[in-house]
Amino acid sequence: MTEHTVSAYENELKGLAQRVAEMGGLAEKQIVGSIDALMRNDHALAQQVRAADGQVDALQREIEEVGILIIAKRQPMAIDLREIVGALRIAADLERIADLAKSNAKRVLAMNGTQSLPKVTGGFDAMARLAMERVKQVLDAYAQRDVAAALEVWGADGDIDALYNSLFRELLTYMLEDPRNIGPCTHLLFCAKNLERIGDHATNIAETIHYMVNGVALVDERPKLDTISMVPVA
Amino acid sequence: MTEHTVSAYENELKGLAQRVAEMGGLAEKQIVGSIDALMRNDHALAQQVRAADGQVDALQREIEEVGILIIAKRQPMAIDLREIVGALRIAADLERIADLAKSNAKRVLAMNGTQSLPKVTGGFDAMARLAMERVKQVLDAYAQRDVAAALEVWGADGDIDALYNSLFRELLTYMLEDPRNIGPCTHLLFCAKNLERIGDHATNIAETIHYMVNGVALVDERPKLDTISMVPVA
Repeated sequence: MTEHTVSAYENELKGLAQRVAEMGGLAEKQIVGSIDALMRNDHALAQQVRAADGQVDALQREIEEVGILIIAKRQPMAIDLREIVGALRIAADLERIADLAKSNAKRVLAMNGTQSLPKVTGGFDAMARLAMERVKQVLDAYAQRDVAAALEVWGADGDIDALYNSLFRELLTYMLEDPRNIGPCTHLLFCAKNLERIGDHATNIAETIHYMVNGVALVDERPKLDTISMVPVA
Repeated sequence: MTEHTVSAYENELKGLAQRVAEMGGLAEKQIVGSIDALMRNDHALAQQVRAADGQVDALQREIEEVGILIIAKRQPMAIDLREIVGALRIAADLERIADLAKSNAKRVLAMNGTQSLPKVTGGFDAMARLAMERVKQVLDAYAQRDVAAALEVWGADGDIDALYNSLFRELLTYMLEDPRNIGPCTHLLFCAKNLERIGDHATNIAETIHYMVNGVALVDERPKLDTISMVPVA
């Protein structure tokens, strides 16, 4: 392989990583937009988030196509191959994150202002901030190929789960208090679940960074809190 | 390329498709298991579904690895490349389907028998049957590379959405009727949502089959019912 070719190859890999970073930026913007729309009952913003999801999907397809083409053209081995496979996996997680943000934006439109329960808004604010922070941290870890930083995100997901469990119980008490809250609170239960799942995707990305850099999958079970059995029954 | 090589290559592609079919079989089994567990409040079965999810995940990783290796080794063009990319995409959808089945199995354990509301069981039965049927149909369409059959699955998803909307409203009425239903019905709302999402993944697979065979993405918007704004609010 000539030096010229190697350099072209390196540029291809860089271009792929840049697209993933760009997609990460879009996904972050979608999370922020969906949460702001929820907090402020901002329908125009919710519509904007809904409409922008197509860009994220298109970018994922592009990353997939470019990555596959590089594999076919360059037949990369070991670390380079992991770099490309990692980009494809991260793009898939970012697409899911943006999808969850879009789902929350659609619920803002459906709730039509009935979600304004002041105390719940506080819980959402805390959970949303944490979810956004985790996504930001893990994208920084990806940019730096920093496994230690990625593992920090991976190990910290229990915080989001704990906030989710609190918020869940809080929402249930509103439903028990007044049946008129059942409709809007049901929407909010799904919104909270979506934020919790955004946190899960951030930990998936952390696992991918570990695999990209170290070449092995994380063997430990992720320290995840139980977010299902916490729902009180009978 | 010698004939020997071509034939080895063909075997590799066949092996990949076989793994996808195997994964499809496992995913179907997980859906059936999770629904039976829900209907019969069968905790042993729910545990089994929960434990078997690891096999599905491992198979997805294997399909990813094998697919990427074939791309690097064979540098396939056009239809063969789409065949491999399609296998990777379908495996990702099957992994999500199995994950949703696992989530329902976990909720069976968490509900601990409190879900036995006879009328709701009927709605779940209908929805689960339809979701399983769609997954089965789309896997058959994949086995035959039958675009017409895939498009039938793709176009029929509105049925599952309609059942979901009915079930959702029904569950809300139980919650409104008696606050003691709020806990278990919340679990059931998420279970129904998971079934609805299984239907969505079946349509994703249908889109992938279209892309594999015809080389272009489906341009039409999928005929999806609105399953969010149907929740009645204030």
